[in-house]
Amino acid sequence: MHTDLVAALDIGGTKIAGALVDGSGGILVRNQRPTPAREHGEAVMDAVTDVLVGLTASPYWPRVASLGIGSAGPVDASTGTVSPVNVPGWRGFPLVDRVRRTIGGLPVALVGDGVAMTAAEHWLGAARGHDDALCLVVSTGVGGGLVLGGKLHPGVTGNAGHIGHISVELNGDLCPCGSRGCVERIASGPNIARRALLGGWLPGPDGDVTAAGVAAAARSGHPVAIASFERAAQALAAAIAATATLVEIDIAVVGGGVAGAGDVLFTPLRRALRNYATLSFVRGLTVVPAVMGTDAGLVGAAAAAPVRPAGAVALST
Amino acid sequence: MHTDLVAALDIGGTKIAGALVDGSGGILVRNQRPTPAREHGEAVMDAVTDVLVGLTASPYWPRVASLGIGSAGPVDASTGTVSPVNVPGWRGFPLVDRVRRTIGGLPVALVGDGVAMTAAEHWLGAARGHDDALCLVVSTGVGGGLVLGGKLHPGVTGNAGHIGHISVELNGDLCPCGSRGCVERIASGPNIARRALLGGWLPGPDGDVTAAGVAAAARSGHPVAIASFERAAQALAAAIAATATLVEIDIAVVGGGVAGAGDVLFTPLRRALRNYATLSFVRGLTVVPAVMGTDAGLVGAAAAAPVRPAGAVALST
Repeated sequence: MHTDLVAALDIGGTKIAGALVDGSGGILVRNQRPTPAREHGEAVMDAVTDVLVGLTASPYWPRVASLGIGSAGPVDASTGTVSPVNVPGWRGFPLVDRVRRTIGGLPVALVGDGVAMTAAEHWLGAARGHDDALCLVVSTGVGGGLVLGGKLHPGVTGNAGHIGHISVELNGDLCPCGSRGCVERIASGPNIARRALLGGWLPGPDGDVTAAGVAAAARSGHPVAIASFERAAQALAAAIAATATLVEIDIAVVGGGVAGAGDVLFTPLRRALRNYATLSFVRGLTVVPAVMGTDAGLVGAAAAAPVRPAGAVALST
Repeated sequence: MHTDLVAALDIGGTKIAGALVDGSGGILVRNQRPTPAREHGEAVMDAVTDVLVGLTASPYWPRVASLGIGSAGPVDASTGTVSPVNVPGWRGFPLVDRVRRTIGGLPVALVGDGVAMTAAEHWLGAARGHDDALCLVVSTGVGGGLVLGGKLHPGVTGNAGHIGHISVELNGDLCPCGSRGCVERIASGPNIARRALLGGWLPGPDGDVTAAGVAAAARSGHPVAIASFERAAQALAAAIAATATLVEIDIAVVGGGVAGAGDVLFTPLRRALRNYATLSFVRGLTVVPAVMGTDAGLVGAAAAAPVRPAGAVALST
């Protein structure tokens, strides 16, 4: 029998999802549990095992070549351990060793969730066909990943592309990570909302005090709401330009809830990028929205799996 | 006859150097001309041709497998052209095509000078044995290069690692490149000196108003001189931490004239790095001085050559 499928695990603070994925990115089998994030680490692992057992019970399981895991970070691919910020029961948790109890000797790759999203966008999404790309997730936090020379660049520990925690203001606000002026501290959804509220913006009748509420106000022309998005866009632009200057990319793909603001974010972002991406070799950089949607984590984990089905995209035709 | 040598060209605003280099980085033949940087582009090319003709006249020439060129940037490896800031007669100058008139069909690689220096430090210097490294040149400008996954990462155009022009202050001083708050605008030698002079520092009896003069004053405890180096160190630390966060490196090698300040730079740099490199996967990052000295450009151009002698380091034994 051909091993033409891969298994994928997407581990977040809210849910643990698993799937069997074919060479076209199609999801044949899907399984999911809520993450018992506030419980003991073993309870979280039990949920992972439940999801995996559901997959191994599938008649497709014998066709699985390898397992890709995308997890909330930080992860450490070099040791196979994870320490997700939102899952306090897991600190240096030996996830790769533990999944082997269920899946045996299959090859396993572990990457951070930003890297997984990047793998998905490169495989089937907005970064497809681009050999050098940055993908960002702008949401409650700001994460990302890199494609360099046509290949995913997870880094030794699987965390590369973690653009939310580069400093774009040497003496900026203290970030929970311990550094100052981090992109996330300026551009994440909660920080966009916080800044708007501090500036005097009040939510509408729906009471939405999130970045989506600020985006709606910005679309109606509210100057404080517009300014808060412009500042987020400025920080993202500086970080995207820095990445292009450091590694040479020709496209930046922006996803996550905040990207849902559309032109409210992308118009000032593209404008600010012209100010920061000034050298000849980065001036051609384009910024586009992500397209992979809610399955990006699973499809990306599949794309990051160590053994991908040969033939890939053509397999399901 | 074995092709066990490579030819190297190091093109700067002051001199054009060429060499034949063996598999151990030993320089067998060397040739050099001043760069007629203020003259017409063809005069500059004539100097390059002179240097190359000197090399091709060597009895070793038949053993040359390829040519590596490191040039002041920006360069464009994808088109084989160069536009060095300090050589106004060369804008989009087709350097690779033109050297072929002298060297014929040998394989040629073109990289920026920061990338060449990085190749030298990785081959034989302070980054040797490190699969993921950033090298910086802190001098009149600030440049750099990257080694990722054990290999030089020049980027598509040969300019990757150009750390001097990433912004670490969103609303910082305007940089000649057009952006704001660039590392070079804060940490280059001239900017260290400028800031010290603005702060009220006066040069000693030797009249040295360069960063070296500021470093001497800092060593004697002059607070304005110390503060100017601390600010440069802060900008470099943020940029090094950003690089580590983006691509995962475990060592940063700092060379160039300003690195000659020694502890005056490295002590505050290492201290500041602890403030900016906070995530688990970047905390282990070390910073060390470059070791390759004045031949780094030539040795690095040789290291970046497209066909390296097999056996490399063992060849001369």
